[in-house]
Amino acid sequence: MQTLIQHWSAAIRDKDIEAIMAYYDPEIVAYDAIIQLQFKGIEAYGKHWEFCLGMCPGPMIFEQSELVVHGDQQLAFAHWLNSCGGADEKGEMKSSWMRASAGFRRTAEGWKAVHEHFSAPFDMESGKALFDLKP
Amino acid sequence: MQTLIQHWSAAIRDKDIEAIMAYYDPEIVAYDAIIQLQFKGIEAYGKHWEFCLGMCPGPMIFEQSELVVHGDQQLAFAHWLNSCGGADEKGEMKSSWMRASAGFRRTAEGWKAVHEHFSAPFDMESGKALFDLKP
Repeated sequence: MQTLIQHWSAAIRDKDIEAIMAYYDPEIVAYDAIIQLQFKGIEAYGKHWEFCLGMCPGPMIFEQSELVVHGDQQLAFAHWLNSCGGADEKGEMKSSWMRASAGFRRTAEGWKAVHEHFSAPFDMESGKALFDLKP
Repeated sequence: MQTLIQHWSAAIRDKDIEAIMAYYDPEIVAYDAIIQLQFKGIEAYGKHWEFCLGMCPGPMIFEQSELVVHGDQQLAFAHWLNSCGGADEKGEMKSSWMRASAGFRRTAEGWKAVHEHFSAPFDMESGKALFDLKP
């Protein structure tokens, strides 16, 4: 599972949409950190990924920390902290820590992510997402 | 799993901290919607639950929608949209939709949640959590 997640992360940093989407099951239900409550199915989530990659024209940071995997023969779930970032307008790399959870099923095409959840926690008083938290 | 989640939700609405915490494994790693990146272990998460319940002195809304469960004999994970709310200063009930993911293991004490992730997506321009999204 660790290798699967590492390959997918490399595909994200390479902005290789085909390799990114090969990680997902057609029936993926995703809760992304931004914009919508949920994305249902690989077509909707693929469009969202293309939108997200379009926002990051330069080099990207996308790395895992504190990965925990629970798995057996047919089913697995994992969670980790994800360092996400990219170059700002001045070309300086900026990143923040997000939280990620994922669920996987073994299929005829190998392990596929059927669920994904990315988020940043928010501050209750301001209602703003907290981007400066450290593990 | 649906019944387990329903009993836990009833315990939350009843503000029964003992019944809420009986749902979790001692090694729970939780990503809550607010304040911190993560909570590790039942003691830290129990303190956070007490803090959260303390913020809601009146009646609470805590209901599931669109629950999906993937499970086998020893392992399960689930995700759903969660309507969360309570009475405001004028006594009016207000709620918003959050996203929830959870992972479970069968233990000697029955099924226990070993992972939990709650969040609201945020708006990229304002950085603010989005509380008015509907499923």
